[in-house]
Amino acid sequence: MRFTSETSSDGVREQLFTIDDVPGVLWTPDDAVGTRPLILMGHGGGQHKKAPGIMFRARRFVTEGGFAVVAVDVPGHGDRPKDEEYDRIATRNQARVEAGEELAPLLADFQALVARRTVPEWRVVLDAVQEREHVGAGPVGYWGVSLGCGLGVPFVAAEPRVRAAVLGLGGALASAEPAARITVPVEFLMQWDDERVPRAQGLALFDALASTDKTLHANPGGHGEIPAFELDSTLRFFARHLH
Amino acid sequence: MRFTSETSSDGVREQLFTIDDVPGVLWTPDDAVGTRPLILMGHGGGQHKKAPGIMFRARRFVTEGGFAVVAVDVPGHGDRPKDEEYDRIATRNQARVEAGEELAPLLADFQALVARRTVPEWRVVLDAVQEREHVGAGPVGYWGVSLGCGLGVPFVAAEPRVRAAVLGLGGALASAEPAARITVPVEFLMQWDDERVPRAQGLALFDALASTDKTLHANPGGHGEIPAFELDSTLRFFARHLH
Repeated sequence: MRFTSETSSDGVREQLFTIDDVPGVLWTPDDAVGTRPLILMGHGGGQHKKAPGIMFRARRFVTEGGFAVVAVDVPGHGDRPKDEEYDRIATRNQARVEAGEELAPLLADFQALVARRTVPEWRVVLDAVQEREHVGAGPVGYWGVSLGCGLGVPFVAAEPRVRAAVLGLGGALASAEPAARITVPVEFLMQWDDERVPRAQGLALFDALASTDKTLHANPGGHGEIPAFELDSTLRFFARHLH
Repeated sequence: MRFTSETSSDGVREQLFTIDDVPGVLWTPDDAVGTRPLILMGHGGGQHKKAPGIMFRARRFVTEGGFAVVAVDVPGHGDRPKDEEYDRIATRNQARVEAGEELAPLLADFQALVARRTVPEWRVVLDAVQEREHVGAGPVGYWGVSLGCGLGVPFVAAEPRVRAAVLGLGGALASAEPAARITVPVEFLMQWDDERVPRAQGLALFDALASTDKTLHANPGGHGEIPAFELDSTLRFFARHLH
C-alpha cells in the first residue's frame, strides 16, 4: 500500500493510495485516532472512486457517523487502464443488443466476470486499510448500488468482515445466487420506475437475500433518482449495525 | 363533543371523549398550549382506539414529536355496540370462505362498506378536535395499517386537511381506486411474508398511489410483525411533513 497524496477539508482527511496497481481513496475524520467502523463503497458503471455520488455520501459517513470510508476504481474505470477484454465484451454486447438481444442477461454475465476480479481486490484493500492506526480492525459495512450492487453482492457474500450492507438498483438475474448466501442486515434500495432494472428483477433480488434483517426501500423515479432522504436512512442503518 | 375522563402520565395527557356516539381518545403533551400538528390513527380489525399498538405509537408521537394524536373506535369495535348488519356480513363471509371462496374480495367489499361510515365520522372528529385550544387547526397526518389502511385510504383521499399518511398491510383489491386520488406524501409499510395480504396486492396498492412523494418500506415477517425501527422512520416522516 503506497500513499500518493493527502489533503484535508471541512473535517475530512483524504488519502489517495495504490495497492497492487489498484488506485483507491481513504476518507477519515481529520482527528481520527484508533479503531473505527469502515465502510467500503463500490461505484457505479462508468463512474470512479471519486464520482460525485460517492464523494457526497462518503463525506457524510465520515462527518456524521465518524466512519472511515474507502473506495477503489473498478477495473477499466477511473485511473485504471482500459481493459481490452472488457472493451471487447462491451462492444460485442452492444452489437448483440442492437441485433435485438436483451441487455439484462448480457450485463449479468459481464458483472459476474468483473466480480471475479473485484472480490479478491477488495479483500486485499480491507486487509491493508485496516492495518492503518486510524482505521483498525473494526466492523465493516458495504455501500453500493447499480454496478456497485452487482459487484457488491458477491463481495458481501464472500467477506465475513462485512456486518451490514446497503445495496440496490440491481436485479436477481445478475445476483440472486450470491444474494442467497448473504445473511447480514441489508437495506435495499429500489427505484420504482427504474428504466434499467425491471421492477420484478429488483423485487426478486430483495427476495433472494437470505438475511432475516433486510428492509426494502422503494421510491418513485428512474435509476439515478434515489431521493435525498434515503441517505439519512442509510446513515442511521450503518450507525445501528456498525457502532 | 363531550369529554368523559382525563388522566396524565409520563408527560402525556389523555382525554376520553364521545362525539355523536363515537367514543374517542385524544393524547397531547402535558404542557401543550396552542396549535400543533395532529395525527389521526386508525386501528386494526378486532382492535380498538386504545389497543397496545395504537397506544405505544401515540405516546411516541406525543412525547418525541410534540404532536396531538386522536383515535376513535371503528363501528362494531371497542366501546361501540355490536353492529347487526356487519355481524351478518361477517358470518356470511365466513361461510363463503369455508365453502371455498377467496377471502380478499369479500374483505375488500366489507371495508368499502365500513369506510362509507368512518370517512364522515372521522371528518367530524377532526372538526371537533381542532377546535380545542391545545390542538388547533394545524397540519394533519394519518397513520393506519391493515383495517386502518383499508379505512384510511378513502379517508386520506377525501380529506384535504391530511398532508401526509403512513399506510400499509393493505392491498389494491380493497383500495386501488381511492389510492389513485391520494397525492400527499405516503410512507407505505409492507410485510414481505404477510399471510393476509398477498405480496402482489400490497405492491399494487403502493403502485396505485398517485403521490409523487411516496416510499415503500418492506420487511420480512408476517402481518403483525412490523419491525420496531419502522416507528423511528414513521416519526421522522411525520416530522418532515407536518412540522
